[in-house]
This record gives sequence, structure tokens and C-alpha cells, in this order.
Amino acid sequence: MKLISYRKEGKAHFGAVSGDGVVELTRRFAQVPDLASFLANRLLVQEARKIVETAQADYPFSSIQLEAVIPNPGKVICVGINYVAHAEEAGRKVGEFPVIFQRFAETLLPHGEPLVRPKVSEQFDFEAELAVVIGKGGAHIDPADAMDHVAGYTCFNDASVRDWQFHTHQYGMGKTFRKTGALGPWIIPASEISDYRTLVVRGILNGEQLQEGSLSELAFDIPHLISYVSKALPWNPGDILATGTPSGIGFKRKPPIFLKPGDVFEVVITEIGTLSNGVIDEA
Amino acid sequence: MKLISYRKEGKAHFGAVSGDGVVELTRRFAQVPDLASFLANRLLVQEARKIVETAQADYPFSSIQLEAVIPNPGKVICVGINYVAHAEEAGRKVGEFPVIFQRFAETLLPHGEPLVRPKVSEQFDFEAELAVVIGKGGAHIDPADAMDHVAGYTCFNDASVRDWQFHTHQYGMGKTFRKTGALGPWIIPASEISDYRTLVVRGILNGEQLQEGSLSELAFDIPHLISYVSKALPWNPGDILATGTPSGIGFKRKPPIFLKPGDVFEVVITEIGTLSNGVIDEA
Repeated sequence: MKLISYRKEGKAHFGAVSGDGVVELTRRFAQVPDLASFLANRLLVQEARKIVETAQADYPFSSIQLEAVIPNPGKVICVGINYVAHAEEAGRKVGEFPVIFQRFAETLLPHGEPLVRPKVSEQFDFEAELAVVIGKGGAHIDPADAMDHVAGYTCFNDASVRDWQFHTHQYGMGKTFRKTGALGPWIIPASEISDYRTLVVRGILNGEQLQEGSLSELAFDIPHLISYVSKALPWNPGDILATGTPSGIGFKRKPPIFLKPGDVFEVVITEIGTLSNGVIDEA
Repeated sequence: MKLISYRKEGKAHFGAVSGDGVVELTRRFAQVPDLASFLANRLLVQEARKIVETAQADYPFSSIQLEAVIPNPGKVICVGINYVAHAEEAGRKVGEFPVIFQRFAETLLPHGEPLVRPKVSEQFDFEAELAVVIGKGGAHIDPADAMDHVAGYTCFNDASVRDWQFHTHQYGMGKTFRKTGALGPWIIPASEISDYRTLVVRGILNGEQLQEGSLSELAFDIPHLISYVSKALPWNPGDILATGTPSGIGFKRKPPIFLKPGDVFEVVITEIGTLSNGVIDEA
């Protein structure tokens, strides 16, 4: 099941993609305000799956405007340097603790909407990642219980402004520029992925594969990451955890490759799907 | 005028403190949903001042529950190492660009509510700061125009979990633990502060002054900070900019001083007021 947030005729909805169509779930779960709240209750997700399997699509996929899968998550927590090969290219070692940084929710954009290359930099880089969407909230989560808190998975492009990222010793604004965090196109429920460690994430620029990593290579696995963050701050439904990017980013290539207007960058994850975004210059 | 966000009988309001009472502004500006939206329009602030000068208080201050001055700001942007003396104690130099990091809005708490010392650390430290509340939004703001975007000022305690802050090269979760960002008690409108550079911020633990700095000492002044961030991401009404802490933090003292249950930490800023919070252990 491919769960989406979208707008139709100006109204916010959530639903599921079914073939070329969309099964609207908003009116079938009228007590639930949005996809984040829906994902908090695993029984609702099971019920929706049965509906989507048998229902006719309500309207064509082409008639909706996708939103970032969770339009306004409470938090977007990102992990840096989480593939060993990427740590090496970045000149970093994997240490005892995960490298955590934040992205403002307002920087997210959906599948199909162009990434915006900022006015103030030409060092606009891509980062293909698997993102976890939290279902059940909680604090002080034991790693052994952490996967119970995962609602599902989606694709993420943590597009980064490299010169700004290294203005100081903190990443600062470099990883939270306007319209640089592509998230989508849909959420595949965790119950449909037997083992996330078998997933492979690829980053593809204008048809050429530049990044590839297996989720089995994560230095800090998803249960560990969920547990670590939950000691500091509770997870809430709809929160996003971006698990880090594999090696092959543009900045560390010789010569470097940066995103420019007209480019198309795809994040392709096995069993999940393809997140595709063009690039335009900031107006 | 002392603008506040608060709850009364379970309902969210904004208003102004007047003597021992509160003038409710919510019902007088019924078209405005919250204090952030109210601050976006300078004319409303002027109108409110006239009302507050002449109106009787609607109810006693003791009958309300304060909220963090902006209960759920879109972003909380913090600046590190922004007083030269503090940079020296932290072993850092002030460079070409400001050190920017983020705090999740959900970690904020109001004046009077206890800061929560986390279960996972005893290195719970204080940071007295002046916080700027944004009124008019905007992007690519010229420093010469930046002060037009300031709605007002309040006190901030950027309480930090030092061992977690230095788990890796990024501050990570260390500056965004649950219930560690005290903000308040009220906003003094920018029009009532003739020159913010004359303000003095003090940090006082259990009655003993441990921090003091003049806003004239900022390495990156407020116009510069507003301008820098606005190149990456637009400012929106109600966004918070914390301007950094002066020297004297607990972590760098010999021996170190950390917050513990029963402590009271006050952020006192001339012309603004006193933000006071106790400390309790996480339940």
C-alpha cells in the first residue's frame, strides 16, 4: 500500500495510490485529521489495506497535487556519516554516537516539485536516503522495541548547500535551505517490508547512478537511532528520521558534481519506489 | 507593554500584563488567531498599546497559565559562540560566519515551569540569552532593513546537555532535549527598546550571578544574524532567534556547576524582565 498526503481542489487529504488512481482515505476515516494521526494507529492502517485492495479508485492520480508525505512533521531528524564508505569520503570516522542534525519541516517538498538551487550558492548537492516515518510515539525506547514505532518508509533527498554547511563547525543553515528536502512519493507501511536491511538506496542524476548503498551497511541501525533520539526527546506520530546517505555525493567527486537547473535527481529504493525532482534556480 | 501567550480555563489566549492583571487581547482582536499573527502587523501592536494603557485588567495575572511567549514557533534558530569572552571560554574563535543551530519548538517551556534535568545526563547547563521574536516575515533581508522585522524581545534559557552536545562534531540532540528551552515571560515590543545594544543579560543561579554580557558585545549583531539566515530560509512571524550566551556557563567553570533539582535559574535582561525557572528531574 502506497500512502500519500495530497491536495485536491485546494483541500488537504490522505489516501492510497491504487494503479493509476487514488483511493481517498480522508472521508473513510473522517475522525482522523491527517496521515500522521492515521499512522499512529496500526489497526487503522490494516483496515485501510483491506479497503484499498477492493475499492475502486476515487479519481485519477493525475488529478491530485502530492504533498511531502507528511506535510508538516513535528520534527525531521537527520543522521550524518552513517554509511562507512560515505564517512571515509567525508574524511570522518564512525564514532560511538550517531551524528544528528535537524531540518526545518518548512524546507520539505513533495515528489515531482523542483528542488530550488539557492541564490547564494552553486554548491547544491544531492543525498539519497531512506527515511523512516514514525507511527507510535514514545520516549526512552529500547532498541528491541524500536521497530514497533516505525509506521513505514519513504525516499528522501537531503539536498545540501555545501559551502554553507561548512561555514562553521556546525552544519547551521547548510542543510535546511528552502525547498531542498524532497520527501516521498509515498509511505510503504512497515508491515510490508520484511527486513529493511535488505533495501538498497540509489541516487541517480539525469539517468546516471551516482550513489548506492544497502541499508545493511548502516553504522547505526534504525532501532539504535530511534532509541538514541528518544532518550532526549519523545518521538511523535509523523516525525521523520532520515537514516543518512551512502557514498557518491557530488561534493567529494573529482571534479565535483553539483545540481543545476534542468537536472533531475532520483532517489530509488527497492520495494519503496522512486522520488524524482527537477532542479530550478531560486526566483 | 508586556505581551504574553497564556491559557485560561483550558483556552489559548494572548494578551498583555497590566500591573497585577491581564488585559485579554484575543477577544479584542478576534480576527487574529494567535500572538505570532498579531505581531506580524505593527499597526495592531500600536492599537493594542492604546487599549492596554487605558483598559481595566480583565482578570488577575495569578489566574492564568503562561505559555512560552510563542507557544509553537515555526522555527527556533540559535546562535553559538556569539560573545567573544564566551568563545574564549569554549576554546573557539569567532570566525567569518555565525554558528547556527536549531532547537525543536516542542522543547520550549514558559516562565515558571521547571526545566527538566534528563535521566541520561547530569551535565545539565544553563545559558542566559536575549531572544528576538520576528514580526514581519521575509527573505534575503538586507542588514539595513533587518530591524524592521523584529517584533520584540524576550528572555531565553538555552539549557544544554553538555555530554550529549559533544557526543559528535555536531551538537545533535544536546541542545534540544525535552523541556529545556525556557522562553519568556513576555515580549517587549521593539518600539519600546530604543537600542537593543544597550541591554545587559545576566544569568543568576540560586541568587548568585554567574553570567553577564552586554548586547553591544555580540560578534554577529542582530541585523547581521537576521540577514544571514534569511538568505537560506524565509523568516516567518513568531520565529525565534536566540542571540547566544555570554561567558560564565557552568560547564567551563572549575569545578563545573550543573543544574540540579531544586535549583532556580533566572535570566534577567535590563528593560525586558526576568525569566525564572526551577529544575526538576525527569520523571
